[in-house]
Amino acid sequence: MAAKDPLIIRDRDEMRKWSRSMRAQGSSIGLVPTMGYLHEGHLSLIKEAQKHADLIVVSIYVNPGQFSPNEDLSTYPSNFEGDIEKLRSVHGGVDVVFNPFNLYDYGVYEGGETMKKGEEEKGEKVISCVESSKFGHETWIRVENLEKGLCGKSRPIFFRGVATVVVKLFNIVEPDVAVFGKKDYQQWRIIRRMVLCWISKEIESSYCNQVRDLDFGIKIIGSELVREHDGLAMSSRNVHLSPQEREKALSISRSLYEAKKAAENGERDCTKLRNYVAQTIQKAGGKVDYDEIVDQESLESVEVIQSPVVFCIAALFGNVRLIDNMEINV
Amino acid sequence: MAAKDPLIIRDRDEMRKWSRSMRAQGSSIGLVPTMGYLHEGHLSLIKEAQKHADLIVVSIYVNPGQFSPNEDLSTYPSNFEGDIEKLRSVHGGVDVVFNPFNLYDYGVYEGGETMKKGEEEKGEKVISCVESSKFGHETWIRVENLEKGLCGKSRPIFFRGVATVVVKLFNIVEPDVAVFGKKDYQQWRIIRRMVLCWISKEIESSYCNQVRDLDFGIKIIGSELVREHDGLAMSSRNVHLSPQEREKALSISRSLYEAKKAAENGERDCTKLRNYVAQTIQKAGGKVDYDEIVDQESLESVEVIQSPVVFCIAALFGNVRLIDNMEINV
Repeated sequence: MAAKDPLIIRDRDEMRKWSRSMRAQGSSIGLVPTMGYLHEGHLSLIKEAQKHADLIVVSIYVNPGQFSPNEDLSTYPSNFEGDIEKLRSVHGGVDVVFNPFNLYDYGVYEGGETMKKGEEEKGEKVISCVESSKFGHETWIRVENLEKGLCGKSRPIFFRGVATVVVKLFNIVEPDVAVFGKKDYQQWRIIRRMVLCWISKEIESSYCNQVRDLDFGIKIIGSELVREHDGLAMSSRNVHLSPQEREKALSISRSLYEAKKAAENGERDCTKLRNYVAQTIQKAGGKVDYDEIVDQESLESVEVIQSPVVFCIAALFGNVRLIDNMEINV
Repeated sequence: MAAKDPLIIRDRDEMRKWSRSMRAQGSSIGLVPTMGYLHEGHLSLIKEAQKHADLIVVSIYVNPGQFSPNEDLSTYPSNFEGDIEKLRSVHGGVDVVFNPFNLYDYGVYEGGETMKKGEEEKGEKVISCVESSKFGHETWIRVENLEKGLCGKSRPIFFRGVATVVVKLFNIVEPDVAVFGKKDYQQWRIIRRMVLCWISKEIESSYCNQVRDLDFGIKIIGSELVREHDGLAMSSRNVHLSPQEREKALSISRSLYEAKKAAENGERDCTKLRNYVAQTIQKAGGKVDYDEIVDQESLESVEVIQSPVVFCIAALFGNVRLIDNMEINV
């Protein structure tokens, strides 16, 4: 089959117009939101989307709303030409790449800056690169409980930014289906929560389209984490690891596997499991940001495993922050 | 012309299905969100919507998300049959009344209650009737600056609740146009901000469809405040006023008119104008919650009138909280 060139759209109105005209012709649309620098993990999301929709839109946008000014927005890796090349190679192809220049730059809000000078100086308010750039944006989506733990502790504006840009993308692309990777476990739970309801364990596997916090008419699909051959969770940030750091970083996935095996063999004490993983990563030279075992739905900490949990890790090797997770269904 | 019976829809999925099938047939849809107990003010919103859309949906839903537990959710007036009767009388008619039973009741979130017990007891977190009812909802829209002043001061969860239910209604009804009354001035600015951009004064009168905080593909229209013959701003809450209170409450609109006239005749000092209005209302027996003169866009307080402002008032007569406002374009 010949490679398919995706249509590249940079303008929001043009994007929405395309979606509406396709839907009017009876096609369903699947959205795969990405920040670019695509790898096999992203391509697996696209393959998942193809199962559920006739046409595929991949968005490529590094979202300033989820980075704080001291984070790595400016060095986040990108390679647009390489991304397009990869998308051309996907079996079945991708129909549109939505690649907006800036989703927040609609003029500075002259009437009142987002922050009073005093607040900024005293550091009273945590802000993202959107506010620090003085873009005139002030509407944010908060998923008040789920946003707090795990990555939310060290990155307090992260999920506010993620949820908000996802709502923007939903409103621009107007998809029928959107696919998110479970690599970013907390993100996927937050998006699902925003769109789909909390559902009881019994109907976990079915989609719950009747109820959801914001009532979007969109089906949210979670796609499994994809690993390199040696077990490292795929991430655009892996490119920043030196060969030595990369080797050491394998301690994350390896210790997670061991913990999962131990749990399956009867170890239910989360403190023991967490200590084992943290110590293994530290011995390898990593700095653990968090290692937590949490309920798969509520993301609340668990002390004794009695129901499905997920073991979530964030750790730094060198300057590279890596996240990984493993579901444990005992 | 014969009166038209609107179709009454209570189910979200049925509502969305209706909208999508109408849109597929080429019709545009106008939404007028209300909390029921309709009066001439609401009917004027419907007439405005008819100018912009082929089909009209009026939602009737008293939103628990914008009431705090100590406010008047339980006594908010309602008269569904009377509302339908009024809607039948509207020239051109209304196509659908969307009247959901509860937009938040999708089961209690077992994993973690919305609030920790300690927080509730200490009163650390201000909550709405949604949280106090333990509905499993936790996603909220915050328009961070505009939600703070005016009514936001005494009702800190109010605009969070309004913005969130409006997003829910937008996602359920999927309208092309939505009409909001400028009676609720801060609300209309917040919704417009969420959907439409802040725009410079020069293009104030034109719709700015290219840019907006959440990128909804919906046109937001503001409809002018409607008054009773004697000048009282129309409100569903007026029914709670005794005849004596009602007479006294006229001090609000009358003093606002006087202030507007004074400004047009050259008085630019906001302190003087505000004192005049506050004293007039107090003399009539009202309790002023706030009287502020603010920029029409940013809603920030103004000391000297130099550009278009709006004079906003909230005052209690008896137990009835009334709001009113007047734009001053000098």
